[in-house]
Amino acid sequence: MTAPFKVATIGLGSMGFGIASSLLRSQLAVYGYDISEMQAARFRKQGGQPGELSAVAASLDAVVVVVLNADQTESVLFGADGVVAQLKPGAVVVSCATMAPSFAREMEARCAKLNVLYLDAPISGGAVKAADGKLSVMAAGSDEAFAAARPALDAMAQTVFELGSEAGPGSAMKSVNQLLAGVHIASMGEAMTFGMKQGITPQKIFEVISQSAGNSWMFENRAPHVLAGDYSPASAVDIWLKDLGIVMDIAKNERFSAPLTAAALQQFVAASGSGWGREDDAAVAKVYARNAGVTLPGDE
Amino acid sequence: MTAPFKVATIGLGSMGFGIASSLLRSQLAVYGYDISEMQAARFRKQGGQPGELSAVAASLDAVVVVVLNADQTESVLFGADGVVAQLKPGAVVVSCATMAPSFAREMEARCAKLNVLYLDAPISGGAVKAADGKLSVMAAGSDEAFAAARPALDAMAQTVFELGSEAGPGSAMKSVNQLLAGVHIASMGEAMTFGMKQGITPQKIFEVISQSAGNSWMFENRAPHVLAGDYSPASAVDIWLKDLGIVMDIAKNERFSAPLTAAALQQFVAASGSGWGREDDAAVAKVYARNAGVTLPGDE
Repeated sequence: MTAPFKVATIGLGSMGFGIASSLLRSQLAVYGYDISEMQAARFRKQGGQPGELSAVAASLDAVVVVVLNADQTESVLFGADGVVAQLKPGAVVVSCATMAPSFAREMEARCAKLNVLYLDAPISGGAVKAADGKLSVMAAGSDEAFAAARPALDAMAQTVFELGSEAGPGSAMKSVNQLLAGVHIASMGEAMTFGMKQGITPQKIFEVISQSAGNSWMFENRAPHVLAGDYSPASAVDIWLKDLGIVMDIAKNERFSAPLTAAALQQFVAASGSGWGREDDAAVAKVYARNAGVTLPGDE
Repeated sequence: MTAPFKVATIGLGSMGFGIASSLLRSQLAVYGYDISEMQAARFRKQGGQPGELSAVAASLDAVVVVVLNADQTESVLFGADGVVAQLKPGAVVVSCATMAPSFAREMEARCAKLNVLYLDAPISGGAVKAADGKLSVMAAGSDEAFAAARPALDAMAQTVFELGSEAGPGSAMKSVNQLLAGVHIASMGEAMTFGMKQGITPQKIFEVISQSAGNSWMFENRAPHVLAGDYSPASAVDIWLKDLGIVMDIAKNERFSAPLTAAALQQFVAASGSGWGREDDAAVAKVYARNAGVTLPGDE
């Protein structure tokens, strides 16, 4: 390539900022945008290109959208000043937010009408892996969309799962992962406090379970937050109201009965209703603890 | 030691037979008993000592009880021809069944009245690890009980978690592990069928999730049974009616609200009510599949 690959990241939260930084490290020409101009300025200081989105959109090869949800994605793509109408033919939208597969298919179709490619590309791995360019991407789209997005994917991901030749399966797989992750975080809270109620220390529970058949990726990752009494948000309780809400919406539409997801969602709703929505999602343990009269570390 | 350590294993099911075989490999003098005389004969053929329990009980150093539940444990220990009354002072009962901590404490107290030691020693790891002498034991009891049981523990376990100086915490920790394990098996079923309902193949779900944050020990272990459509029981559905039933009993007694466990238990109850109680516990996926019109591998 003679000209550098030009890519904009829209949404510079903990995931988006990490992705944009990873794109920078790969010597791409990277533009970063956020509703917070402070975040955008912070990114430009790290090497991001200057210029309004409206001024540079026509020259972009790819747009990576890392906003909160489907509504924000639609607004960025097709709202007032939506970016898709300003892109050149053959440019690709890499859509990273968690959303229903049907919504991803709709976005793909609307992009296609404007000759823009769309990659259904939800991400997994958390902020640290985003910053390291080591995300997992659950991706689906046409061969052309994959090819057009490749420089960005190579820069942001350690693993790209190729799940289908049109939008949908990426979001579907993400919903499966979020179902499990959400249920497992809630079951971590249920199990830790159940053991404490029986007089076992949380340290001992963590030591034994992390070496036993009851272990999960989420137990191993989140139980230490409970041990430390540290609920500074890596991923917040309210993220699960959104993500398990998406799972339940898909499930209802598909006539799929999901009782564990429903139960887990209600525990996160109770955590949020208790004022812990912006705390780390391990704070779901506080709901169990309060309901059972268990004192958690940090609450003595 | 001049005389060999003499130990009886009571209960020669998939776990007990493996434990008894591991004890044999460690050059202990091992007696094996089961309500099935065929199983007992099979064990004697492998090197088990001959002789009725009533004839050898007084000479035993340890009795490892590997029966299904608390009722069977009580019957073996204190029922008609109960073994505890026949043991010599200082002999130890190693109690491996899953039971409520309060029941374990009661067994310890009743043994103590007859000068018999008691180790609260639920096991984890499955039949293969039992046969290999590589179980995890979640153990609690007096120093004397641990010391008396040591040759048996060394032979049957890779890891012995020492959780307290009297009976109870071993069973409590096991209940925590079973809560998680049961919830994670049911969530495996929920997630696999949820993904399939959205058109993803079970192979692809397994490939992605086993490398993602939604993974769990149980997902990785049980999802392959669904992929293969093979429900020959490693651990049966009905085990979870028992073990999650114990969790729910403890929870109610402790006034501990456990909504995920309750939801998971109901899915296993539905599986058992559908006639799949003796199939592998991964058959909980069949409940979800039938409720959602999903065809599982092996059902085409």
